[in-house]
Amino acid sequence: MTDSVAQPGEPMPGPDIDAFYRLVAARRDMRNGFLPDPVPDEVLTRVLTAAHQAPSVGLSQPWDFLIIRDRAVRAQVRALARKEQDVFAGSLPRSRALRFGDMKVEAILDAPVNIVVTCDPTRGGRHVLGRHAQPQVAAYSSVCAVQNLWLAARAEGLGVGWVNFFDERELSEVLGLPAYLEIVAYLCVGHVSEFPPGPELALSGWAQRRPLAWAVHDGQWGRRGLPGGNPASLLADTVAAIRPAEAKAIAAAR
Amino acid sequence: MTDSVAQPGEPMPGPDIDAFYRLVAARRDMRNGFLPDPVPDEVLTRVLTAAHQAPSVGLSQPWDFLIIRDRAVRAQVRALARKEQDVFAGSLPRSRALRFGDMKVEAILDAPVNIVVTCDPTRGGRHVLGRHAQPQVAAYSSVCAVQNLWLAARAEGLGVGWVNFFDERELSEVLGLPAYLEIVAYLCVGHVSEFPPGPELALSGWAQRRPLAWAVHDGQWGRRGLPGGNPASLLADTVAAIRPAEAKAIAAAR
Repeated sequence: MTDSVAQPGEPMPGPDIDAFYRLVAARRDMRNGFLPDPVPDEVLTRVLTAAHQAPSVGLSQPWDFLIIRDRAVRAQVRALARKEQDVFAGSLPRSRALRFGDMKVEAILDAPVNIVVTCDPTRGGRHVLGRHAQPQVAAYSSVCAVQNLWLAARAEGLGVGWVNFFDERELSEVLGLPAYLEIVAYLCVGHVSEFPPGPELALSGWAQRRPLAWAVHDGQWGRRGLPGGNPASLLADTVAAIRPAEAKAIAAAR
Repeated sequence: MTDSVAQPGEPMPGPDIDAFYRLVAARRDMRNGFLPDPVPDEVLTRVLTAAHQAPSVGLSQPWDFLIIRDRAVRAQVRALARKEQDVFAGSLPRSRALRFGDMKVEAILDAPVNIVVTCDPTRGGRHVLGRHAQPQVAAYSSVCAVQNLWLAARAEGLGVGWVNFFDERELSEVLGLPAYLEIVAYLCVGHVSEFPPGPELALSGWAQRRPLAWAVHDGQWGRRGLPGGNPASLLADTVAAIRPAEAKAIAAAR
Protein backbone atom coordinates (compact mmCIF):
# COMPACT_ATOMS: atom_id res chain seq x y z
CA MET A 1 0.00 0.00 0.00
CA THR A 2 1.36 3.39 0.91
CA ASP A 3 4.20 1.54 2.55
CA SER A 4 5.94 0.40 -0.60
CA VAL A 5 6.53 3.48 -2.77
CA ALA A 6 7.42 7.09 -2.17
CA GLN A 7 4.61 9.56 -2.77
CA PRO A 8 5.19 12.88 -4.54
CA GLY A 9 5.12 15.88 -2.23
CA GLU A 10 1.66 16.92 -3.35
CA PRO A 11 -1.58 17.62 -1.54
CA MET A 12 -4.02 14.76 -1.23
CA PRO A 13 -7.10 14.97 -3.50
CA GLY A 14 -9.45 17.81 -2.48
CA PRO A 15 -12.28 15.55 -1.27
CA ASP A 16 -9.83 13.69 1.01
CA ILE A 17 -8.61 16.96 2.55
CA ASP A 18 -12.17 18.15 3.09
CA ALA A 19 -13.10 14.81 4.67
CA PHE A 20 -10.22 15.13 7.10
CA TYR A 21 -11.21 18.64 8.15
CA ARG A 22 -14.82 17.47 8.64
CA LEU A 23 -13.53 14.63 10.80
CA VAL A 24 -11.40 16.93 12.95
CA ALA A 25 -14.37 19.26 13.48
CA ALA A 26 -16.74 16.39 14.31
CA ARG A 27 -14.53 14.61 16.86
CA ARG A 28 -15.83 14.92 20.43
CA ASP A 29 -14.78 14.02 23.94
CA MET A 30 -17.83 11.89 24.83
CA ARG A 31 -19.27 11.34 28.27
CA ASN A 32 -22.99 11.03 27.56
CA GLY A 33 -24.96 8.90 25.14
CA PHE A 34 -22.91 5.70 25.04
CA LEU A 35 -24.80 2.62 23.83
CA PRO A 36 -24.15 -0.92 25.07
CA ASP A 37 -23.77 -2.35 21.54
CA PRO A 38 -20.54 -4.33 21.20
CA VAL A 39 -17.68 -2.93 19.12
CA PRO A 40 -16.76 -5.41 16.36
CA ASP A 41 -13.21 -6.77 16.57
CA GLU A 42 -12.40 -5.71 13.02
CA VAL A 43 -13.42 -2.10 13.69
CA LEU A 44 -11.36 -2.03 16.87
CA THR A 45 -8.42 -3.46 14.96
CA ARG A 46 -8.64 -0.74 12.30
CA VAL A 47 -8.78 1.95 14.97
CA LEU A 48 -5.77 0.46 16.77
CA THR A 49 -3.90 0.16 13.47
CA ALA A 50 -4.29 3.92 12.99
CA ALA A 51 -3.09 4.53 16.55
CA HIS A 52 -0.07 2.30 15.93
CA GLN A 53 0.95 4.41 12.91
CA ALA A 54 1.50 7.49 15.07
CA PRO A 55 4.87 9.25 15.07
CA SER A 56 7.24 8.39 17.92
CA VAL A 57 10.56 9.70 19.12
CA GLY A 58 13.33 7.74 17.42
CA LEU A 59 10.65 5.34 16.13
CA SER A 60 10.52 3.91 19.66
CA GLN A 61 6.74 3.23 19.47
CA PRO A 62 6.53 3.29 23.27
CA TRP A 63 2.77 2.70 23.40
CA ASP A 64 0.76 -0.36 24.39
CA PHE A 65 -3.01 -0.72 24.30
CA LEU A 66 -4.78 -2.66 27.02
CA ILE A 67 -8.38 -3.50 26.03
CA ILE A 68 -10.76 -3.88 28.95
CA ARG A 69 -14.25 -5.27 28.46
CA ASP A 70 -14.70 -7.06 31.81
CA ARG A 71 -17.37 -5.29 33.81
CA ALA A 72 -15.88 -6.19 37.18
CA VAL A 73 -12.56 -4.59 36.27
CA ARG A 74 -14.33 -1.50 34.91
CA ALA A 75 -16.32 -1.25 38.15
CA GLN A 76 -13.08 -1.22 40.13
CA VAL A 77 -11.67 1.48 37.85
CA ARG A 78 -14.82 3.52 38.19
CA ALA A 79 -14.57 3.40 41.98
CA LEU A 80 -11.10 4.95 41.68
CA ALA A 81 -12.42 7.69 39.39
CA ARG A 82 -15.28 8.42 41.81
CA LYS A 83 -12.81 8.90 44.63
CA GLU A 84 -10.79 11.43 42.61
CA GLN A 85 -13.96 13.25 41.58
CA ASP A 86 -14.71 13.75 45.25
CA VAL A 87 -11.21 15.12 45.82
CA PHE A 88 -11.68 17.54 42.90
CA ALA A 89 -15.15 18.62 44.06
CA GLY A 90 -13.69 19.41 47.46
CA SER A 91 -11.16 21.76 45.88
CA LEU A 92 -13.78 23.85 44.02
CA PRO A 93 -15.45 27.07 45.09
CA ARG A 94 -19.09 26.42 46.02
CA SER A 95 -20.66 27.70 42.79
CA ARG A 96 -18.50 25.43 40.66
CA ALA A 97 -18.81 22.49 43.04
CA LEU A 98 -22.59 22.58 42.67
CA ARG A 99 -22.36 22.47 38.90
CA PHE A 100 -19.66 19.81 38.98
CA GLY A 101 -21.95 17.58 41.05
CA ASP A 102 -24.41 17.46 38.13
CA MET A 103 -21.81 16.77 35.48
CA LYS A 104 -21.01 13.42 33.97
CA VAL A 105 -17.22 13.15 33.66
CA GLU A 106 -16.74 9.51 32.68
CA ALA A 107 -18.48 6.64 30.93
CA ILE A 108 -16.39 3.78 32.28
CA LEU A 109 -19.34 1.43 32.77
CA ASP A 110 -21.53 2.82 29.95
CA ALA A 111 -18.96 2.28 27.21
CA PRO A 112 -18.49 -1.43 26.47
CA VAL A 113 -14.79 -1.04 25.69
CA ASN A 114 -12.16 0.78 27.74
CA ILE A 115 -8.66 1.24 26.32
CA VAL A 116 -5.65 2.07 28.45
CA VAL A 117 -2.81 3.66 26.48
CA THR A 118 0.56 3.34 28.17
CA CYS A 119 4.12 4.50 27.59
CA ASP A 120 7.23 2.48 28.19
CA PRO A 121 9.83 5.22 28.68
CA THR A 122 12.65 2.69 28.24
CA ARG A 123 11.39 1.20 24.96
CA GLY A 124 14.13 0.95 22.35
CA GLY A 125 16.97 0.95 24.85
CA ARG A 126 19.21 3.75 25.98
CA HIS A 127 20.02 5.33 22.65
CA VAL A 128 16.66 6.32 21.24
CA LEU A 129 17.23 9.17 18.81
CA GLY A 130 16.03 12.47 20.26
CA ARG A 131 14.96 11.21 23.67
CA HIS A 132 18.04 12.11 25.72
CA ALA A 133 17.42 15.85 26.01
CA GLN A 134 13.64 15.69 26.45
CA PRO A 135 12.58 12.36 27.99
CA GLN A 136 8.94 13.48 28.19
CA VAL A 137 8.69 13.05 24.40
CA ALA A 138 8.30 9.30 24.94
CA ALA A 139 4.92 9.92 26.59
CA TYR A 140 4.14 12.49 23.89
CA SER A 141 4.50 9.73 21.30
CA SER A 142 1.80 7.72 23.08
CA VAL A 143 -0.40 10.82 23.05
CA CYS A 144 -0.02 11.06 19.27
CA ALA A 145 -1.27 7.46 19.14
CA VAL A 146 -4.27 8.49 21.26
CA GLN A 147 -5.16 11.28 18.86
CA ASN A 148 -4.92 8.96 15.82
CA LEU A 149 -7.12 6.45 17.68
CA TRP A 150 -9.64 9.15 18.55
CA LEU A 151 -10.00 10.43 14.99
CA ALA A 152 -10.22 6.89 13.58
CA ALA A 153 -12.89 5.99 16.13
CA ARG A 154 -14.95 9.07 15.21
CA ALA A 155 -14.67 8.17 11.53
CA GLU A 156 -15.98 4.69 12.38
CA GLY A 157 -18.86 6.20 14.35
CA LEU A 158 -17.42 5.38 17.77
CA GLY A 159 -17.35 7.83 20.65
CA VAL A 160 -14.24 8.24 22.80
CA GLY A 161 -14.03 9.84 26.24
CA TRP A 162 -10.70 10.49 27.96
CA VAL A 163 -10.97 10.09 31.76
CA ASN A 164 -8.39 11.94 33.87
CA PHE A 165 -9.73 11.32 37.34
CA PHE A 166 -7.14 8.85 38.59
CA ASP A 167 -4.29 8.39 40.95
CA GLU A 168 -1.98 6.73 38.46
CA ARG A 169 -0.45 4.29 40.94
CA GLU A 170 -3.83 3.04 42.12
CA LEU A 171 -5.04 2.58 38.56
CA SER A 172 -1.86 0.78 37.60
CA GLU A 173 -2.34 -1.65 40.50
CA VAL A 174 -5.98 -2.39 39.66
CA LEU A 175 -4.99 -3.08 36.05
CA GLY A 176 -1.99 -5.23 36.98
CA LEU A 177 0.42 -3.14 34.93
CA PRO A 178 4.20 -3.49 35.28
CA ALA A 179 5.62 -0.74 37.49
CA TYR A 180 7.86 0.76 34.76
CA LEU A 181 4.90 1.68 32.55
CA GLU A 182 3.33 5.14 32.53
CA ILE A 183 -0.41 5.38 32.01
CA VAL A 184 -0.92 8.05 29.37
CA ALA A 185 -4.65 7.80 28.78
CA TYR A 186 -7.76 5.95 29.96
CA LEU A 187 -10.31 5.93 27.15
CA CYS A 188 -13.98 4.92 27.13
CA VAL A 189 -14.94 3.69 23.66
CA GLY A 190 -18.25 2.66 22.16
CA HIS A 191 -21.18 3.46 19.93
CA VAL A 192 -23.10 6.60 20.85
CA SER A 193 -26.58 7.87 20.09
CA GLU A 194 -25.23 11.13 18.68
CA PHE A 195 -22.22 13.41 18.57
CA PRO A 196 -23.00 16.84 20.02
CA PRO A 197 -22.47 19.92 17.83
CA GLY A 198 -19.64 21.26 20.02
CA PRO A 199 -17.53 20.37 23.06
CA GLU A 200 -19.83 19.39 25.94
CA LEU A 201 -18.02 21.74 28.31
CA ALA A 202 -18.62 24.66 25.92
CA LEU A 203 -22.29 23.76 25.33
CA SER A 204 -22.87 23.58 29.08
CA GLY A 205 -21.11 26.89 29.73
CA TRP A 206 -18.40 25.38 31.96
CA ALA A 207 -15.62 26.57 29.65
CA GLN A 208 -15.35 28.52 26.42
CA ARG A 209 -13.54 28.12 23.14
CA ARG A 210 -10.59 30.41 22.46
CA PRO A 211 -10.37 32.07 19.06
CA LEU A 212 -7.54 30.75 16.89
CA ALA A 213 -6.20 34.28 16.34
CA TRP A 214 -5.45 34.45 20.05
CA ALA A 215 -3.39 31.25 19.92
CA VAL A 216 -1.20 32.11 16.93
CA HIS A 217 1.88 34.33 17.34
CA ASP A 218 3.28 35.44 14.02
CA GLY A 219 7.04 35.79 14.10
CA GLN A 220 7.33 36.80 17.72
CA TRP A 221 5.67 35.85 20.99
CA GLY A 222 2.79 38.24 21.70
CA ARG A 223 2.25 39.32 18.10
CA ARG A 224 -1.07 37.52 17.97
CA GLY A 225 -3.09 37.04 14.80
CA LEU A 226 -3.70 34.62 11.96
CA PRO A 227 -0.82 34.10 9.52
CA GLY A 228 -0.73 37.10 7.18
CA GLY A 229 -3.71 38.68 8.93
CA ASN A 230 -4.03 42.09 10.50
CA PRO A 231 -3.46 41.55 14.20
CA ALA A 232 -5.19 44.75 15.28
CA SER A 233 -8.50 43.86 13.65
CA LEU A 234 -8.70 40.72 15.73
CA LEU A 235 -8.63 42.48 19.03
CA ALA A 236 -12.37 43.05 19.38
CA ASP A 237 -13.22 39.39 18.73
CA THR A 238 -10.54 38.34 21.10
CA VAL A 239 -11.65 40.49 23.97
CA ALA A 240 -15.21 39.27 23.51
CA ALA A 241 -14.07 35.68 23.53
CA ILE A 242 -11.97 35.74 26.67
CA ARG A 243 -14.68 37.12 28.90
CA PRO A 244 -14.91 34.71 31.78
CA ALA A 245 -17.37 31.88 31.23
CA GLU A 246 -18.07 31.92 34.92
CA ALA A 247 -21.02 34.33 34.91
CA LYS A 248 -23.36 31.94 33.12
CA ALA A 249 -22.12 28.95 35.08
CA ILE A 250 -22.61 30.70 38.40
CA ALA A 251 -26.08 31.88 37.45
CA ALA A 252 -27.09 28.36 36.43
CA ALA A 253 -25.66 26.90 39.63
CA ARG A 254 -27.73 29.31 41.69
CA MET B 1 -21.08 23.74 9.86
CA THR B 2 -20.54 20.72 12.07
CA ASP B 3 -20.65 23.12 14.97
CA SER B 4 -24.34 23.91 14.86
CA VAL B 5 -26.19 20.58 14.90
CA ALA B 6 -25.71 17.23 16.58
CA GLN B 7 -24.64 14.40 14.28
CA PRO B 8 -26.13 10.91 14.54
CA GLY B 9 -23.76 8.34 16.05
CA GLU B 10 -22.99 6.80 12.70
CA PRO B 11 -19.80 6.08 10.79
CA MET B 12 -18.67 8.70 8.31
CA PRO B 13 -19.16 7.78 4.64
CA GLY B 14 -16.89 4.93 3.53
CA PRO B 15 -14.71 7.05 1.21
CA ASP B 16 -14.06 9.53 4.06
CA ILE B 17 -12.97 6.72 6.38
CA ASP B 18 -10.67 5.27 3.72
CA ALA B 19 -9.22 8.72 3.04
CA PHE B 20 -8.40 9.13 6.73
CA TYR B 21 -6.65 5.77 6.93
CA ARG B 22 -4.64 6.63 3.81
CA LEU B 23 -3.65 9.91 5.40
CA VAL B 24 -2.54 8.25 8.65
CA ALA B 25 -0.45 5.75 6.71
CA ALA B 26 1.12 8.45 4.50
CA ARG B 27 2.13 10.86 7.29
CA ARG B 28 5.90 11.05 7.81
CA ASP B 29 8.39 12.65 10.17
CA MET B 30 10.38 14.57 7.55
CA ARG B 31 14.01 15.55 7.75
CA ASN B 32 15.10 15.35 4.12
CA GLY B 33 13.72 16.81 0.93
CA PHE B 34 12.32 20.14 2.12
CA LEU B 35 11.84 22.76 -0.61
CA PRO B 36 12.25 26.51 -0.09
CA ASP B 37 8.81 27.33 -1.59
CA PRO B 38 6.80 29.54 0.73
CA VAL B 39 3.77 28.12 2.53
CA PRO B 40 0.65 30.19 1.67
CA ASP B 41 -0.99 31.91 4.63
CA GLU B 42 -4.36 30.34 3.92
CA VAL B 43 -2.91 26.83 3.93
CA LEU B 44 -1.09 27.52 7.18
CA THR B 45 -4.31 28.90 8.66
CA ARG B 46 -6.25 25.74 7.72
CA VAL B 47 -3.56 23.56 9.27
CA LEU B 48 -3.57 25.63 12.47
CA THR B 49 -7.38 25.54 12.55
CA ALA B 50 -7.21 21.74 12.64
CA ALA B 51 -4.61 21.90 15.40
CA HIS B 52 -6.80 24.27 17.39
CA GLN B 53 -9.71 21.79 17.28
CA ALA B 54 -7.77 19.20 19.27
CA PRO B 55 -9.18 17.83 22.51
CA SER B 56 -7.89 19.41 25.72
CA VAL B 57 -8.27 18.67 29.40
CA GLY B 58 -11.29 20.57 30.71
CA LEU B 59 -11.39 22.44 27.36
CA SER B 60 -8.40 24.43 28.61
CA GLN B 61 -6.85 24.68 25.10
CA PRO B 62 -3.42 25.25 26.64
CA TRP B 63 -1.58 25.46 23.31
CA ASP B 64 -0.09 28.42 21.48
CA PHE B 65 1.58 28.37 18.09
CA LEU B 66 4.61 30.55 17.44
CA ILE B 67 5.34 30.82 13.71
CA ILE B 68 8.99 31.46 12.87
CA ARG B 69 10.07 32.37 9.37
CA ASP B 70 13.03 34.67 10.17
CA ARG B 71 16.24 33.00 9.04
CA ALA B 72 18.39 34.61 11.73
CA VAL B 73 16.18 33.22 14.48
CA ARG B 74 16.15 29.80 12.86
CA ALA B 75 19.95 29.89 12.62
CA GLN B 76 20.17 30.52 16.37
CA VAL B 77 17.78 27.65 17.02
CA ARG B 78 19.78 25.39 14.78
CA ALA B 79 22.96 26.17 16.68
CA LEU B 80 21.23 24.96 19.86
CA ALA B 81 20.14 21.75 18.14
CA ARG B 82 23.68 21.16 16.87
CA LYS B 83 25.03 21.41 20.38
CA GLU B 84 22.56 18.81 21.66
CA GLN B 85 23.34 16.52 18.75
CA ASP B 86 26.98 16.57 19.83
CA VAL B 87 25.97 15.69 23.38
CA PHE B 88 23.89 12.79 22.07
CA ALA B 89 26.66 11.56 19.75
CA GLY B 90 29.03 11.52 22.72
CA SER B 91 26.66 9.22 24.61
CA LEU B 92 26.51 6.59 21.87
CA PRO B 93 28.57 3.44 21.44
CA ARG B 94 31.04 3.85 18.55
CA SER B 95 29.06 1.87 15.96
CA ARG B 96 25.94 3.94 16.48
CA ALA B 97 27.87 7.22 16.77
CA LEU B 98 29.36 6.68 13.33
CA ARG B 99 25.94 6.15 11.79
CA PHE B 100 24.46 9.05 13.71
CA GLY B 101 27.11 11.35 12.27
CA ASP B 102 25.71 10.70 8.78
CA MET B 103 22.09 11.21 9.73
CA LYS B 104 20.04 14.30 9.18
CA VAL B 105 17.97 14.92 12.29
CA GLU B 106 16.50 18.37 11.63
CA ALA B 107 15.49 20.70 8.81
CA ILE B 108 15.36 23.95 10.78
CA LEU B 109 16.95 26.02 8.01
CA ASP B 110 15.67 23.94 5.06
CA ALA B 111 11.99 24.28 5.97
CA PRO B 112 10.73 27.84 5.40
CA VAL B 113 8.35 27.70 8.37
CA ASN B 114 9.09 26.55 11.90
CA ILE B 115 6.24 26.21 14.39
CA VAL B 116 6.76 26.07 18.14
CA VAL B 117 3.87 24.46 19.99
CA THR B 118 3.72 25.42 23.65
CA CYS B 119 1.65 24.55 26.70
CA ASP B 120 0.48 26.97 29.35
CA PRO B 121 -0.03 24.62 32.33
CA THR B 122 -2.01 27.34 34.15
CA ARG B 123 -4.45 28.09 31.31
CA GLY B 124 -8.04 28.17 32.50
CA GLY B 125 -7.20 28.90 36.10
CA ARG B 126 -6.98 26.56 39.06
CA HIS B 127 -10.14 24.54 38.51
CA VAL B 128 -9.66 22.98 35.11
CA LEU B 129 -11.76 19.84 34.97
CA GLY B 130 -9.59 16.72 35.16
CA ARG B 131 -6.22 18.43 35.56
CA HIS B 132 -5.78 18.20 39.32
CA ALA B 133 -4.85 14.53 39.56
CA GLN B 134 -2.69 14.36 36.44
CA PRO B 135 -1.20 17.79 35.63
CA GLN B 136 0.82 16.35 32.74
CA VAL B 137 -2.41 16.09 30.72
CA ALA B 138 -2.14 19.82 30.00
CA ALA B 139 0.96 19.15 27.89
CA TYR B 140 -0.77 16.09 26.42
CA SER B 141 -3.50 18.39 25.10
CA SER B 142 -0.88 20.39 23.19
CA VAL B 143 0.47 17.11 21.79
CA CYS B 144 -3.00 16.26 20.45
CA ALA B 145 -2.89 19.64 18.68
CA VAL B 146 0.49 18.69 17.19
CA GLN B 147 -0.91 15.46 15.81
CA ASN B 148 -3.91 17.22 14.24
CA LEU B 149 -1.51 19.76 12.73
CA TRP B 150 0.71 17.01 11.40
CA LEU B 151 -2.09 15.12 9.67
CA ALA B 152 -3.58 18.33 8.24
CA ALA B 153 -0.18 19.36 6.91
CA ARG B 154 0.30 15.98 5.22
CA ALA B 155 -3.14 16.25 3.64
CA GLU B 156 -2.13 19.68 2.29
CA GLY B 157 1.11 18.23 0.90
CA LEU B 158 3.34 19.77 3.58
CA GLY B 159 6.08 17.88 5.36
CA VAL B 160 6.53 18.18 9.12
CA GLY B 161 9.60 17.22 11.14
CA TRP B 162 9.61 17.22 14.96
CA VAL B 163 13.02 18.23 16.37
CA ASN B 164 13.82 17.04 19.89
CA PHE B 165 17.44 18.11 20.20
CA PHE B 166 17.05 21.01 22.59
CA ASP B 167 17.73 22.17 26.07
CA GLU B 168 14.29 23.60 26.68
CA ARG B 169 15.46 26.59 28.73
CA GLU B 170 17.98 27.67 26.10
CA LEU B 171 15.38 27.38 23.35
CA SER B 172 12.85 29.30 25.37
CA GLU B 173 15.36 32.12 25.84
CA VAL B 174 16.27 32.34 22.15
CA LEU B 175 12.57 32.50 21.28
CA GLY B 176 11.76 35.07 23.95
CA LEU B 177 9.03 32.92 25.49
CA PRO B 178 7.51 33.72 28.90
CA ALA B 179 9.05 31.55 31.61
CA TYR B 180 5.77 29.85 32.59
CA LEU B 181 5.32 28.25 29.16
CA GLU B 182 6.41 24.70 28.37
CA ILE B 183 7.74 23.98 24.90
CA VAL B 184 5.94 20.86 23.72
CA ALA B 185 7.18 20.61 20.13
CA TYR B 186 9.49 22.31 17.65
CA LEU B 187 8.23 21.57 14.14
CA CYS B 188 9.84 22.20 10.75
CA VAL B 189 7.14 22.69 8.13
CA GLY B 190 7.29 23.11 4.37
CA HIS B 191 6.80 21.63 0.95
CA VAL B 192 8.84 18.52 0.21
CA SER B 193 9.97 16.76 -2.95
CA GLU B 194 8.41 13.47 -1.85
CA PHE B 195 7.13 11.54 1.13
CA PRO B 196 9.13 8.34 1.70
CA PRO B 197 7.27 5.00 1.70
CA GLY B 198 8.01 4.38 5.38
CA PRO B 199 9.58 5.99 8.45
CA GLU B 200 13.08 7.22 7.58
CA LEU B 201 14.54 5.50 10.65
CA ALA B 202 13.02 2.18 9.54
CA LEU B 203 14.17 2.57 5.92
CA SER B 204 17.71 3.33 7.09
CA GLY B 205 17.78 0.38 9.47
CA TRP B 206 18.30 2.52 12.60
CA ALA B 207 15.08 1.25 14.18
CA GLN B 208 12.32 -1.20 13.32
CA ARG B 209 8.56 -1.20 13.32
CA ARG B 210 6.79 -3.24 15.98
CA PRO B 211 3.89 -5.44 14.92
CA LEU B 212 0.51 -4.22 16.18
CA ALA B 213 -0.25 -7.63 17.72
CA TRP B 214 2.67 -7.08 20.08
CA ALA B 215 1.26 -3.75 21.28
CA VAL B 216 -2.31 -4.88 21.98
CA HIS B 217 -3.18 -6.66 25.23
CA ASP B 218 -6.64 -8.19 25.14
CA GLY B 219 -8.31 -8.10 28.54
CA GLN B 220 -5.18 -8.46 30.59
CA TRP B 221 -1.63 -7.14 30.47
CA GLY B 222 0.61 -9.66 28.69
CA ARG B 223 -2.20 -11.38 26.77
CA ARG B 224 -0.91 -9.98 23.49
CA GLY B 225 -2.78 -10.27 20.23
CA LEU B 226 -5.23 -8.46 17.99
CA PRO B 227 -8.78 -8.07 19.31
CA GLY B 228 -10.56 -11.41 18.85
CA GLY B 229 -7.46 -12.94 17.28
CA ASN B 230 -5.59 -16.03 18.33
CA PRO B 231 -2.68 -14.78 20.41
CA ALA B 232 -0.56 -17.90 19.94
CA SER B 233 -0.54 -17.66 16.16
CA LEU B 234 1.07 -14.27 16.36
CA LEU B 235 4.11 -15.41 18.22
CA ALA B 236 6.25 -16.31 15.21
CA ASP B 237 5.69 -12.92 13.55
CA THR B 238 6.42 -11.21 16.78
CA VAL B 239 9.66 -12.97 17.48
CA ALA B 240 10.85 -12.21 13.96
CA ALA B 241 9.94 -8.56 14.36
CA ILE B 242 11.69 -7.88 17.64
CA ARG B 243 15.09 -9.15 16.51
CA PRO B 244 17.48 -6.32 17.19
CA ALA B 245 17.90 -3.93 14.28
CA GLU B 246 21.47 -3.37 15.42
CA ALA B 247 23.17 -6.05 13.30
CA LYS B 248 22.50 -4.28 10.00
CA ALA B 249 23.30 -0.88 11.46
CA ILE B 250 26.61 -2.08 12.88
CA ALA B 251 27.56 -3.77 9.63
CA ALA B 252 26.80 -0.62 7.67
CA ALA B 253 28.76 1.53 10.11
CA ARG B 254 31.82 -0.70 9.68
